[in-house]
Amino acid sequence: MPDPLPLLVGGSIAIDNVKTPTAEATNLLGGSASYASLAASYFTDPVHLVGVVGSDYPPEHLAMLERHGVSLAGVDRSEGASFTWSGEYHQNMNERTTRDVAVNVLEDWRVSLPGDLAGVPVVVLANMAPANQLEMIDQCCAPNRFVMADTMDLWINIAREELEQVLERIDLLVINETEAREYAGTSNLVAAGGLLRAKGPAYVVIKLGEFGAVLFGPPERNHGIFRCGAFPLAEVADPTGAGDTFLGAMAGYLASQGATDYGFEQIRDAVVRGTVMASFTCEAFSTRRLEDLSASELSSRLEIFRDMSCW
Amino acid sequence: MPDPLPLLVGGSIAIDNVKTPTAEATNLLGGSASYASLAASYFTDPVHLVGVVGSDYPPEHLAMLERHGVSLAGVDRSEGASFTWSGEYHQNMNERTTRDVAVNVLEDWRVSLPGDLAGVPVVVLANMAPANQLEMIDQCCAPNRFVMADTMDLWINIAREELEQVLERIDLLVINETEAREYAGTSNLVAAGGLLRAKGPAYVVIKLGEFGAVLFGPPERNHGIFRCGAFPLAEVADPTGAGDTFLGAMAGYLASQGATDYGFEQIRDAVVRGTVMASFTCEAFSTRRLEDLSASELSSRLEIFRDMSCW
Repeated sequence: MPDPLPLLVGGSIAIDNVKTPTAEATNLLGGSASYASLAASYFTDPVHLVGVVGSDYPPEHLAMLERHGVSLAGVDRSEGASFTWSGEYHQNMNERTTRDVAVNVLEDWRVSLPGDLAGVPVVVLANMAPANQLEMIDQCCAPNRFVMADTMDLWINIAREELEQVLERIDLLVINETEAREYAGTSNLVAAGGLLRAKGPAYVVIKLGEFGAVLFGPPERNHGIFRCGAFPLAEVADPTGAGDTFLGAMAGYLASQGATDYGFEQIRDAVVRGTVMASFTCEAFSTRRLEDLSASELSSRLEIFRDMSCW
Repeated sequence: MPDPLPLLVGGSIAIDNVKTPTAEATNLLGGSASYASLAASYFTDPVHLVGVVGSDYPPEHLAMLERHGVSLAGVDRSEGASFTWSGEYHQNMNERTTRDVAVNVLEDWRVSLPGDLAGVPVVVLANMAPANQLEMIDQCCAPNRFVMADTMDLWINIAREELEQVLERIDLLVINETEAREYAGTSNLVAAGGLLRAKGPAYVVIKLGEFGAVLFGPPERNHGIFRCGAFPLAEVADPTGAGDTFLGAMAGYLASQGATDYGFEQIRDAVVRGTVMASFTCEAFSTRRLEDLSASELSSRLEIFRDMSCW
């Protein structure tokens, strides 16, 4: 086995309030980078979290991340209230309504990496403003860095120019289906994958929610496509953070593979890990299911998922 | 290799008029049983088509089926106009509007199998009125018959009681996602699969359109689930009949495997064949792409699809 590489995960660290058709919870650990770093911690070490919290941030959330080996040296503490997201899921659990977003300390945050983190070779730009993603790329100087980014419809709509700059500088983009079609300007998913790759990243993963994900890479073989289902769940408690978990687990797995000249099959295997980790996230509110996940539960679900998907 | 078994395919034989955002065609070969029997003909022989056409039915459509080894002894010729469907696809090709349905000769049709077809062991009840599906089951008397059926929202709404009787008497149900959720009364796909299996069929396949299909079987191993993607297409010309092709190819493949005590892995492999055959159907209007498909194109796409799906 190769020596695992360290990983840098930048993004939002939030307080979430979530309502589903059957339950409700407040003051939860949320944010793209929280899910991504926790998921990554199952695969590589160390995982450095980069983000900002307000003075009201629940210390137990940060303590939990630390217990999982997530290093908090890159987390800024700011005066004021933490970024807060409140949302509600509808009956089918695939649609949600954002009830309230309070950007708070995230508003004026500028990424400023501690010097010893600048050379970390595997970098995750979890969902956050493209301006922050660019600041982070600017400060990452590892010669063979591998950079992965996520985005959302908001940024496509209000910060498209910066997002285009992000795309030119990353190796892998993760994006939701609806956003991919909208951004690429086509209803065909295969065409969308190609158009997004043409904007810069060698790899594009389009997330399909309960229908899984599609990976697009260099088309030398099999059109450069890997089609991955989602792990089937008979009950979904809270899908918040599933996409962030997916990205984080992918990144953690890749970092665990050592040298960053990843080939299609390594990225494919990362997609599989991301998919399975995301299924755990859906099984409970916030990061609760991820927090107590054991290595054997993970490897057993990976086995089952392969049996369910391959022939 | 086992000796392939003969196959019986009952359902509609239609004249289709189809409009897409980029093209339009009329007087096409359509109908659930037409697609299903043609698709099945690539895997087993003989394939017996059971249905009804009017006196206006284009003879070249039937001649084409015969050239592919589809036997027409079970096709009734009725006075009057043929069943006709006219529909239009919208920009994203995943939604369509039915512009006109003329039931015509299908209205008073009763299934009456020629005596020598009653013993055919593998039976497809492609989409048609559940009353016709029941008539066909009643006349099929092979001791170890394997019966597969498709249905649609119309029958769930207006003929639910007969549909329930069909489900009690079949081995495998194929059904669309939206219809599965509606019929089972749950938004969760895994739960829907279980609830539909509880109505009778040992196997249930839920079709997800461009996202593939999920097979549910006896839950002894891996929850009895196989998750299959769709073969990715950069352009979809006309998805009409893709679901019927899927069912027919599944059935043809199973019949080609001999003895009808099919296990989960055989059904799984049938789902893969169905998926790949359906992708060809989408590449041109009506059955045009299926008509000139070569064995090597089929086997090559099966290879590629496995590489795209398995790890």
